[in-house]
Amino acid sequence: MLIPGINDNQIALLDIQRKNRGWKGFITPNPNCTTIGLAITLKPILDNFGINVVIMTSMQAVSGAGRNPGVISLDITDNVIPYIAGEEEKVQKETQKILGAFNGESIIPAEFMVSSTCTRINVLEGHTEAVLVSTKDHCEPDDVSMIMREFDPFKGLDLPTAPRNMIIVNNDPFRPQPRLDRNNDNGMATTVGRIRKDYAVKNGIKYVLVSHNTKMGAARGATLAAEILIKKGYIG
Amino acid sequence: MLIPGINDNQIALLDIQRKNRGWKGFITPNPNCTTIGLAITLKPILDNFGINVVIMTSMQAVSGAGRNPGVISLDITDNVIPYIAGEEEKVQKETQKILGAFNGESIIPAEFMVSSTCTRINVLEGHTEAVLVSTKDHCEPDDVSMIMREFDPFKGLDLPTAPRNMIIVNNDPFRPQPRLDRNNDNGMATTVGRIRKDYAVKNGIKYVLVSHNTKMGAARGATLAAEILIKKGYIG
Amino acid sequence: MLIPGINDNQIALLDIQRKNRGWKGFITPNPNCTTIGLAITLKPILDNFGINVVIMTSMQAVSGAGRNPGVISLDITDNVIPYIAGEEEKVQKETQKILGAFNGESIIPAEFMVSSTCTRINVLEGHTEAVLVSTKDHCEPDDVSMIMREFDPFKGLDLPTAPRNMIIVNNDPFRPQPRLDRNNDNGMATTVGRIRKDYAVKNGIKYVLVSHNTKMGAARGATLAAEILIKKGYIG
Amino acid sequence: MLIPGINDNQIALLDIQRKNRGWKGFITPNPNCTTIGLAITLKPILDNFGINVVIMTSMQAVSGAGRNPGVISLDITDNVIPYIAGEEEKVQKETQKILGAFNGESIIPAEFMVSSTCTRINVLEGHTEAVLVSTKDHCEPDDVSMIMREFDPFKGLDLPTAPRNMIIVNNDPFRPQPRLDRNNDNGMATTVGRIRKDYAVKNGIKYVLVSHNTKMGAARGATLAAEILIKKGYIG
Repeated sequence: MLIPGINDNQIALLDIQRKNRGWKGFITPNPNCTTIGLAITLKPILDNFGINVVIMTSMQAVSGAGRNPGVISLDITDNVIPYIAGEEEKVQKETQKILGAFNGESIIPAEFMVSSTCTRINVLEGHTEAVLVSTKDHCEPDDVSMIMREFDPFKGLDLPTAPRNMIIVNNDPFRPQPRLDRNNDNGMATTVGRIRKDYAVKNGIKYVLVSHNTKMGAARGATLAAEILIKKGYIG
Repeated sequence: MLIPGINDNQIALLDIQRKNRGWKGFITPNPNCTTIGLAITLKPILDNFGINVVIMTSMQAVSGAGRNPGVISLDITDNVIPYIAGEEEKVQKETQKILGAFNGESIIPAEFMVSSTCTRINVLEGHTEAVLVSTKDHCEPDDVSMIMREFDPFKGLDLPTAPRNMIIVNNDPFRPQPRLDRNNDNGMATTVGRIRKDYAVKNGIKYVLVSHNTKMGAARGATLAAEILIKKGYIG
Repeated sequence: MLIPGINDNQIALLDIQRKNRGWKGFITPNPNCTTIGLAITLKPILDNFGINVVIMTSMQAVSGAGRNPGVISLDITDNVIPYIAGEEEKVQKETQKILGAFNGESIIPAEFMVSSTCTRINVLEGHTEAVLVSTKDHCEPDDVSMIMREFDPFKGLDLPTAPRNMIIVNNDPFRPQPRLDRNNDNGMATTVGRIRKDYAVKNGIKYVLVSHNTKMGAARGATLAAEILIKKGYIG
Repeated sequence: MLIPGINDNQIALLDIQRKNRGWKGFITPNPNCTTIGLAITLKPILDNFGINVVIMTSMQAVSGAGRNPGVISLDITDNVIPYIAGEEEKVQKETQKILGAFNGESIIPAEFMVSSTCTRINVLEGHTEAVLVSTKDHCEPDDVSMIMREFDPFKGLDLPTAPRNMIIVNNDPFRPQPRLDRNNDNGMATTVGRIRKDYAVKNGIKYVLVSHNTKMGAARGATLAAEILIKKGYIG
């Protein structure tokens, strides 16, 4: 399971997959679209300050449910659906894996809990997530803002589909908004705002993110993953 | 600031207000509509298990912003607004006051933090809140469900506007939904669902609530408050 | 095909159906929900002034499409679907039949054309229709308003499900609106507004109507039909 | 009042305006955004077959009402507003003027009536209009489709903002849809579909159009008008 720029260190798992199964090719499953924006924004926090725990509430777009049958208008107009089957478990497991360590043989999942409430709202595209992180080391909102802005995992790689900014930080308190921010950098950037201190947990930091669930969260994200695999010699 | 059934013990403050200001009448400000559903559901938890900390994300209806100018369709259709000015501070302060102790002279605010992210979504009426509580004493979801169902602060008072159930607990994981549940008991009940354990904090319990922001959260709530004040001899 | 109060004179067709097919029971198909509000409002116009032609544009609610699969949110949010397969043909044929004459043996369809454009919009319940009628005899908007208000086909019948007013005329130019008017008289009344002259056709009258597509337009309408059939001795 | 490509023959009025008022500059008011798509699609019909009468129902986007205060979500969610003050009169007068003749001194308005019902629906951008035209000469839907596709008033003018196609005809009966078609040719094309015969009026043709009310219908349309005025030597 690969989020380009986040867990590229785990790509070597493909060699192990090939060896174990006698395959020439390989399979890299796409992570859940709700995990992607979360894991991307947690990565620089984890690398710089460590993470004790993550608490997240998602407000997910209807396109995440696809079209067959998808979410019918009668259910979501003027409404919220407060449950998406299996989603909260996936968000925890996938985030722990993607942000886990790789010991050369297998992934050691990150140890921090990821507690979430995943809801569906009446938005076409773009998942919005309200995130609270307790970090191991003390940090200020300005520190988080800076490391997010500077987070540039594709530097020098020259990947055609990579966003100009992996994370865009917007200081306007009324942002990010899914309709206004989902298409930033062709839907490949994750937009973050409202970075602020939280006093409910130790070293608490809160923020809101918007991630395009059907671009970075799906097809284009898969293209970007392929571009990385080509660079690393797994494809082509 | 009075939520009927929740902080009736603080009504005696009105005597102090009258005395201090030389008034015959009194003023009881309405609490914020986002605080109301939260405080109502926290009350039986606080009384039975104690509270360490509360973390909440709200998805608030556009009617909460009124009509002058209110939320325009161009801003909220296919969108989320992740900020409501002053709301998160109000939710913390008002919840601490309403659930605080009264020593006969003044209110001693509750000590637990209430960390929130307040957002506006495209729903006409009914605030939805994803709540996480860390309790002092261990409790199971079934315990919380039971004390919420049994919570009956108006028992024997025979108030015309009081809801039949102060809190309705719905076990369907897809509930509560604002369009389906906001009008329960004429918009006076707070509906709770998805009560479950949380492992991100000590003794963690999570749930989702829906509260009618312009019924219990405004006009009808004020009527109910008046009915209580009449019973207690402050009016009439 | 029966709209209670509109084509009760055609009920005797059931005797012919029974005789021809050797049945004891009978089948009365429900008319299309888009036809119902239209035929109800045309009936007093036809009876009083005659009709040359009807031109109608509908803006239909998503509930008209049911739930299997119904209209998905991805298709209708921030959108209009300008076509509903088969609907425009049905509206013409059914309106002509329902407002046709009955010669004791069969229905002679009304001769006027009913030209429509049927669209789907992002409304949960309540079909809105912009109607233009060319009448045979000259009439003024006030005449139309009066005959609609006075239209009372259930007078003296004492039917439990019948609306207090078959047609409600609202003089506020901003009415009828589906969210505000669909539930008038328990969803059994058709609400009409914006009655005005039209100069595009001879003796032109225009108006807008709202009709509850899943109450008068479906289940409750069927109940009302049954109540009439009981009165007439076909059931019970 | 200028719609680029539609009434460029009336530009000489500016000379008269300048002379009469002793101005060096001039003022060209933008037509109403609802008139624009209608007049554009009527122009090739008028030129080829003549027009007896036009009957139109609009479903207009909320952006047409601007932001001050604009349309509030409480009024339009799950709803239709069946009236826009002054709009129907404007549509008739402006269409008659824009499609009128110019005798070298003044505009002689077109004589055909334009009867409309203008409504507001819950769409962000893009006005949808259901149009019925009675033509002077007989014509078939295929004829109308062909002359609309071939309508190319900017041929050879090389204007930067001009749409590649003034009118796009889509044969899919489910099109045009405002969300899918409003941005065709950068919001400068008018998209037409559902061209079909109508039997309610003589030589009846019906169609549905979508026009971007804040692009061709406002700012970009004004830019295009300026580009034409430069070509004709009125600016620069």
